[in-house]
Amino acid sequence: MTKHAQSLKLLNTARGQLEAVIRMVEENAYCVDISKQILATIALLKRANSVILKKHIETCVKNALQQGDFENKLKELEEVFRYMERIL
Amino acid sequence: MTKHAQSLKLLNTARGQLEAVIRMVEENAYCVDISKQILATIALLKRANSVILKKHIETCVKNALQQGDFENKLKELEEVFRYMERIL
Amino acid sequence: MTKHAQSLKLLNTARGQLEAVIRMVEENAYCVDISKQILATIALLKRANSVILKKHIETCVKNALQQGDFENKLKELEEVFRYMERIL
Amino acid sequence: MTKHAQSLKLLNTARGQLEAVIRMVEENAYCVDISKQILATIALLKRANSVILKKHIETCVKNALQQGDFENKLKELEEVFRYMERIL
Repeated sequence: MTKHAQSLKLLNTARGQLEAVIRMVEENAYCVDISKQILATIALLKRANSVILKKHIETCVKNALQQGDFENKLKELEEVFRYMERIL
Repeated sequence: MTKHAQSLKLLNTARGQLEAVIRMVEENAYCVDISKQILATIALLKRANSVILKKHIETCVKNALQQGDFENKLKELEEVFRYMERIL
Repeated sequence: MTKHAQSLKLLNTARGQLEAVIRMVEENAYCVDISKQILATIALLKRANSVILKKHIETCVKNALQQGDFENKLKELEEVFRYMERIL
Repeated sequence: MTKHAQSLKLLNTARGQLEAVIRMVEENAYCVDISKQILATIALLKRANSVILKKHIETCVKNALQQGDFENKLKELEEVFRYMERIL
C-alpha cells in the first residue's frame, strides 16, 4: 500500500463528486443542491490535504530530521501554514 | 450563454487541477507541492460556489420573490449559510 | 429578548476566549495550546456570523420583501457570500 | 521584543474589533455590517494563528530538533493541521 493510499482514495472520491457537480450544472439542477455538493467536495479535499501533510511529516520531514537536515523542512511547513491560512 | 457558464468554466478548471493532483500523488511528487495544488483547487471551488449562489439569487430567488413566494427561498439561504460556516 | 441575544452570547464568549488567548501569549504559554485557543475562537465567531445572518434573513430581508423592496437586499446577500468565500 | 510581539499586536487589534462588533450588536447596527466586521475579525485571528505557528516552528520545534527530540513535536504539528482542517 503506497503511503498515499488513503489520500488517493479521498481524491478519487472528490473527483467523482466534482464530475457529478459538473453534470448537475450542465443539467440545470437546483443551485442550492449544486452548492451543497461543491461544499461537500471542498470538505473531502480539506481531509485529503490533512492526510497528505500527515504522511509528509511522518516520512519526508522525519527522514530529513534524522539526517539533521531540518532548516528547509521547517521553512516549508511555515509556508504550508500560510497557504492554509489564506485559502481555507 | 447558460447562466452557469462562468461557474462551469471554474468547475472544469478545478477538475483538470484535481486530475493533475491525482497524477502527482500516483507519481509520488513532493507532498508540499501536492498540498499546494489541493489548496489551489479548493480556492477554485470556493469561487465557483460563490458564482453559483450569485446566479441563484439573481434568478431563482428573484423570480420566486416576484411571485411573492419567499418563505422557502429564505429558509434555503439560511441553510446555505450554515453549510458554508461548517465547511469553509 | 433582543433578536441578537444568541449571537451576543456567542460574541461575549468569544471575547472572553480572546482575552484568555492574549493572557496565554503574555505568559508565554505553549504555542500549540495558543493556536488551538485561537482556532476555537474562530469557530465561535463563525457560529455567531451564521446566527447574525439567519436573523438578518428572518427580519430585515423578510420585512423588505413584504414591501416588495428586494433588489438591494439581494445585492447585499451576494456581497456577504463573496465576503465569506474570501475570508472563511 | 518578545517572540510574540507581532501576534500580540494582531490579537489586541482583533480584541478591539470584537468589542466594536459587540457594541454594534447592542446598538442594533445593520446585520450585514456586523457580519462584515465579524469576518474581518476572523481574518485577523487567522493571521495571528499563522504568526504563532511560524514562531513555534522557528523556536520550540527547532530547539527540540537540535536536541534530537522530534517525535513529540511532529505529532503536535500533525494535530495542528487537523485542527486547522476542521475549523478553518
